[in-house]
Amino acid sequence: MLCYTAGQSNFSDTLSEKRVFDTMAKISKISGFPEWLPEQKLVEDTVVQTVKSVYELHGFVPIETPSVELRTTLNSQGIADKEIYVLQRARAEEGEVSDLGLHFDLTVPFARYVAQHFNDLVFPFKRYQLQRSWRGERPQKGRFREFYQFDIDIVGRDSLPLSCDAEVVLVVDKVFRKLALGKYVIKLNNRKVLFGLYESLGLSPDQQKQAIVSVDKLDKIGRAGVLSELTGTVGLKSDVGEKILAVCDVRCAAMDLSTVATELKVESPLFQEGVNELRQVLELVPEQHRTDLEIDFSLARGLGYYSGLILETRLVDFPDFGSVCGGGRYEGLVSQFLNKNVPGVGVSVGITRLMDLIFRNNLLPATRKSPARVLVSVFSEEQRLQCVQVAEELRLEGVAVEVFFKSLKLGKQIDFAAKKSIPYVLFIDPESSKISIKDVNSGEQNEVSDLKAWANSEQALNCSG
Amino acid sequence: MLCYTAGQSNFSDTLSEKRVFDTMAKISKISGFPEWLPEQKLVEDTVVQTVKSVYELHGFVPIETPSVELRTTLNSQGIADKEIYVLQRARAEEGEVSDLGLHFDLTVPFARYVAQHFNDLVFPFKRYQLQRSWRGERPQKGRFREFYQFDIDIVGRDSLPLSCDAEVVLVVDKVFRKLALGKYVIKLNNRKVLFGLYESLGLSPDQQKQAIVSVDKLDKIGRAGVLSELTGTVGLKSDVGEKILAVCDVRCAAMDLSTVATELKVESPLFQEGVNELRQVLELVPEQHRTDLEIDFSLARGLGYYSGLILETRLVDFPDFGSVCGGGRYEGLVSQFLNKNVPGVGVSVGITRLMDLIFRNNLLPATRKSPARVLVSVFSEEQRLQCVQVAEELRLEGVAVEVFFKSLKLGKQIDFAAKKSIPYVLFIDPESSKISIKDVNSGEQNEVSDLKAWANSEQALNCSG
Repeated sequence: MLCYTAGQSNFSDTLSEKRVFDTMAKISKISGFPEWLPEQKLVEDTVVQTVKSVYELHGFVPIETPSVELRTTLNSQGIADKEIYVLQRARAEEGEVSDLGLHFDLTVPFARYVAQHFNDLVFPFKRYQLQRSWRGERPQKGRFREFYQFDIDIVGRDSLPLSCDAEVVLVVDKVFRKLALGKYVIKLNNRKVLFGLYESLGLSPDQQKQAIVSVDKLDKIGRAGVLSELTGTVGLKSDVGEKILAVCDVRCAAMDLSTVATELKVESPLFQEGVNELRQVLELVPEQHRTDLEIDFSLARGLGYYSGLILETRLVDFPDFGSVCGGGRYEGLVSQFLNKNVPGVGVSVGITRLMDLIFRNNLLPATRKSPARVLVSVFSEEQRLQCVQVAEELRLEGVAVEVFFKSLKLGKQIDFAAKKSIPYVLFIDPESSKISIKDVNSGEQNEVSDLKAWANSEQALNCSG
Repeated sequence: MLCYTAGQSNFSDTLSEKRVFDTMAKISKISGFPEWLPEQKLVEDTVVQTVKSVYELHGFVPIETPSVELRTTLNSQGIADKEIYVLQRARAEEGEVSDLGLHFDLTVPFARYVAQHFNDLVFPFKRYQLQRSWRGERPQKGRFREFYQFDIDIVGRDSLPLSCDAEVVLVVDKVFRKLALGKYVIKLNNRKVLFGLYESLGLSPDQQKQAIVSVDKLDKIGRAGVLSELTGTVGLKSDVGEKILAVCDVRCAAMDLSTVATELKVESPLFQEGVNELRQVLELVPEQHRTDLEIDFSLARGLGYYSGLILETRLVDFPDFGSVCGGGRYEGLVSQFLNKNVPGVGVSVGITRLMDLIFRNNLLPATRKSPARVLVSVFSEEQRLQCVQVAEELRLEGVAVEVFFKSLKLGKQIDFAAKKSIPYVLFIDPESSKISIKDVNSGEQNEVSDLKAWANSEQALNCSG
């Protein structure tokens, strides 16, 4: 708090400054909590807007949930490997136990939301949700402890047709086409394919779950690592482990699924059901959106709750980066909170991960430093109110305008516009009050007699750009 | 985690459901953490978009900061009355001390951001920031523990002209005009007016700060309460307390400021400086935006860091609701982190408080339940892919479309559209493939031969509405 001294009118320049420098607070980057510069935030906003526009074109409605859930809610999915951040009041009373934790994803809060507001929602309920999530991991390079995800989910009462799975796949394909981050592939699999295979190989239910977790690590620990887990922790014979790995090798285009699956000769109705579901989903995706889809029987997804379709998107030019988007179908998530059967299917785009990749590789250059299109220069302080009025005229036409904050030399004001990438500088002649506008890039300057007309032509140009 | 049984293809309907119902997780509303229904969230999005559009028209750039700051950063402002939430890993190791807390406002994180990225920013730096903040209060009715604020601030190197204060006032006036929530008043004062008065009355610097805090409670504890604090805790004589309260009675229109201030006969250069600053700020606000401004010498603002202009917005129809927007000028906030003088001025719109008021009083009715404009009905499952293709044609034209998820009777599909407030239902004749579109409200139905033309006329209508 500043310390004011009676009678001292310039207190802010003397006393308070001295006091403040004596007690300067420490600043340091907090590992795992990313923070962007304004020009980067403008790129993130564009990415978010692109994803959102696709979600809205499909009729998904927005919701948000609190950042916190009851710890019992967060733990109810038995997600044992997640690190949860618990909230504790700094001035908690002795023995006060906190029952609140920050959510670690958006799916569990969404399931709780559906259960809690069940009677106020129209089903099938299609929602999008853009929020931060938190993982209380130990700080380590490249891992985020706070990150944005942008999710969609569709949940139905009692049942949910496979057309909803197909819509999710279609939306993901459109999102990544529109983002234009280079070639990508949407990998598809079905948990029933995996569980069907595993039961046909004689795995117990417990071993099946463990096998999923192991196979999910294929990218990280490699074939040898997975085989060692399957024959070690999971307790399988080595030929069974080898068979599981052999099926992981299956990659095929959507159209080849049936042939390839038949050749595997897996004796299991569940496996066949998984293959049929995959085929039906593919058939409901419009043909022009099937080209980037790939069946990948090694895709397992780590989370426990998936029960049917699973999918992931990878950017082909960044094979080591892993998935930027993943999801699938689940059954038990809502019903853990509510005595109803509410199956769902959804997907999550990892916005923060994606932005990190975009910035590191300059995929979408961060060039804009301001939303302003025009800088109104100020010749003298006497002119300022007139400058503000001209700025207001332009703003009424939807043009973002900044009025320069001082009446420095005009050359300095033009430099400022260039530094902030504001494309036009407006001048008001102090004698005639005539207006002229300079294009900062070309240097061209013209008198403008009809400001409204100029604004609208400029806006039109801007919209098409 | 679901438990899968080998050979059981409908596992999700039997075993897992049973298991899940046995261990149903508790759900309950968490007091102080608001959560809106989708139709309410759509209203909030409109409010946010309105505020954002004004901010962007003035050239403010977006930033976001992490949800957490170092606890030393949060405490450095000496904000002793705020309750901070500390993050603790659920699986913290023995003796692990958390140095992270959730921010309680956006001003302190912003000041830290400016200090940290000082060399990467263009000054004067104008930013907007929409984020949640948290206050670890004990649960009590009507108090939010998690809430959105939407802030703007302008900070300058070494100095910041009063024209920036005027811009903040102008922006606030435009925001509340555009929100159209009824009559409002923007109350203005200047801390120098208060400190000048207090020093002329012989208060010590410490007493001055305490007097500010007391006067700030006028709405809550009334005149008698404030007087009792001034003569009690602060230790003033009762005639001094009375004089402070008498000045609190001053309310006047912008144009009457000089006359009214002169009549008070306060012998203090600092008081006069405050009055002059107020006058200069008012003169730099375009005349058409001065009508909702009011000078109010009782306005004090509780926070310690303000040093000049202070302002608050109140909705006239809800006098007991308090402020929905507040801010002012500060000097020492950035310099506590950095050996530079970086004065600033800014304001915060309390979005969550505002939404709460809007919903309770139905100021902006929550009628839209979906962004979709068209529901494509599905006559039979054989027709579905064709329906999806027609939906895609409309989406290419920017029309948000939902395809009905089942092939129920068409009447049920129309009911669904009505329930979700989707204005049009599209039918594809299963024989001729001809398309017709029904207006759900009027019941009128027409054949549409050129879908693209229809989409664009419908879009045009929608945009104008």
